[in-house]
Amino acid sequence: MKGGVHTVAVGVLQGDRRSVARGISLVENAAAESLELLKEIYPKTGNAYRIGITGPPGAGKSTITNKLAGYFRRTKQRVGIIAVDPTSPFTGGALLGDRVRMTDVELDRDVFIRSMASRGSLGGLSKKAKEAADILDASGHQVILMETVGVGQSELDVAGAADTTIVVLVPESGDGIQAMKAGLMEIADFFVMNKSDRPGADQAVMSIKMILGFRPSSGGIGPVWLPDVVKAVGSEGKGIEEIAGLIAGHRKFQEESGRLEQKRRARLKRRIRDLVEEQLEEGFWNEQRTGVLERELGGVIERQMTPYDLATKLIEDFRRDMN
Amino acid sequence: MKGGVHTVAVGVLQGDRRSVARGISLVENAAAESLELLKEIYPKTGNAYRIGITGPPGAGKSTITNKLAGYFRRTKQRVGIIAVDPTSPFTGGALLGDRVRMTDVELDRDVFIRSMASRGSLGGLSKKAKEAADILDASGHQVILMETVGVGQSELDVAGAADTTIVVLVPESGDGIQAMKAGLMEIADFFVMNKSDRPGADQAVMSIKMILGFRPSSGGIGPVWLPDVVKAVGSEGKGIEEIAGLIAGHRKFQEESGRLEQKRRARLKRRIRDLVEEQLEEGFWNEQRTGVLERELGGVIERQMTPYDLATKLIEDFRRDMN
Repeated sequence: MKGGVHTVAVGVLQGDRRSVARGISLVENAAAESLELLKEIYPKTGNAYRIGITGPPGAGKSTITNKLAGYFRRTKQRVGIIAVDPTSPFTGGALLGDRVRMTDVELDRDVFIRSMASRGSLGGLSKKAKEAADILDASGHQVILMETVGVGQSELDVAGAADTTIVVLVPESGDGIQAMKAGLMEIADFFVMNKSDRPGADQAVMSIKMILGFRPSSGGIGPVWLPDVVKAVGSEGKGIEEIAGLIAGHRKFQEESGRLEQKRRARLKRRIRDLVEEQLEEGFWNEQRTGVLERELGGVIERQMTPYDLATKLIEDFRRDMN
Repeated sequence: MKGGVHTVAVGVLQGDRRSVARGISLVENAAAESLELLKEIYPKTGNAYRIGITGPPGAGKSTITNKLAGYFRRTKQRVGIIAVDPTSPFTGGALLGDRVRMTDVELDRDVFIRSMASRGSLGGLSKKAKEAADILDASGHQVILMETVGVGQSELDVAGAADTTIVVLVPESGDGIQAMKAGLMEIADFFVMNKSDRPGADQAVMSIKMILGFRPSSGGIGPVWLPDVVKAVGSEGKGIEEIAGLIAGHRKFQEESGRLEQKRRARLKRRIRDLVEEQLEEGFWNEQRTGVLERELGGVIERQMTPYDLATKLIEDFRRDMN
């Protein structure tokens, strides 16, 4: 790449927008240089506060993200936005065609917005989103908003990468039961009932509060964070200050109780484990063993050999190789 | 275990219900003996036709499954049913409290019904469901119905394990857009519009047909399977024969075009890769390396070392160990 990856890293650390964009492209394309870049910038990460925003499609997550970014800008913080847009693993098409444009902040040079779509697995996408967050972090963005469409595992992964996770619902999301089924109740540090000028909003808020009330306590010792529900009309900017207030409150709670450190520690550990497993697999599936798998597969299909035996055979081959 | 795992295997191969139940329990509890059992029965698998039934919560999947099982029983086939019930990864609670009882077939000794809930990751659950399907297959069930609640990755995994995948929708699922967003359009070999006596059914069928019409072709060569939509009222048994007819048609298409063989080959390959990766990781994370990770994590948190360097260090330690 022109200028080299070191130049990109230096640019990122200086907060240069073009370098940030190029760095995220390296990450998104899983370019070989991206590892070098991530290593070089890593020592300067850890300063940004990461906020995950998730919820069902159509709940207005982009609008809330947009307005929150505007709020943080008024407090003079530099804001990074990553909109995670999981692609169908089959067609390769993005799920969100109708992405709301972030009109409030998209011309602001202290807001960096990037939409990321997966080319392959959802798992791959959430990894890349975390790496992009590192780049935004190292380049001096104090707040990173990570928005993801709610389609299962992906939002849980993004929640695992955030310091505070907000789940955005609308009155039509029903009585919260769907959110509960989708696992959103457990990842929410608090809920936003968006479009709350619509009929049924109060009832929807009530039923979520009821479900939250029945939630088993985490069983941990020490202070406990109780998720709440805040009403908003994102398109009119209503409720944004309350949301920002809850984020600040949750951050303070976590910093004082040591939860933030715990959370970040667990996150880093998971990440190192993922890196190790990725490298192990890459080292394992060389041409030779891929060839063995192809050649022996017929015998497994014919039931002359079990899949378990073939796996063991491949592992033994790997061990011999190491010697 | 009483009688030993070999006794269970022999019982499974003889079609003994108690042995099948015990075998699936071994798999579900990830007991050490389960591997031995799966190895022993593997040569007798590959005869069952596996049908995946998925769709959003409340679409009536259990009812359709129940009625389809009854249909296959009338053709004298032995039927196995696995209802995959993903648990929230956080609370450990099952998502389906209100499972429909399979009243039509639950007393039939030639129908084996098992509901499986995950204790840990969804990935783990779909693996166990596939292993349970192997047990049902080896024990002489000619048709295996695998039902899963539609919450993201899990139904895609189950679809990957089925020979024919049916997506059940209801008129209220909207205009199919939600199904498209959730990735269900791509995995469906055909759709069932259940509860089609409700208002809006015809319109819902039409809009799915329209979306299907716009679907990009798979780009492959040879004959192409075009998914269709069939209307049903599961609770009254309406549409069940049509569904069974489409299953038979899809099976015939796949057998004659060679697609079934291709599909099963790809499935087996993926499974062997998964087995290898699982064993690799188990071998890697011994007490020593888990200890290194714990000890060095502080340095990574303090930004004195990058996660990438720690991962490399752990891999190098592994290589030395192998020598």
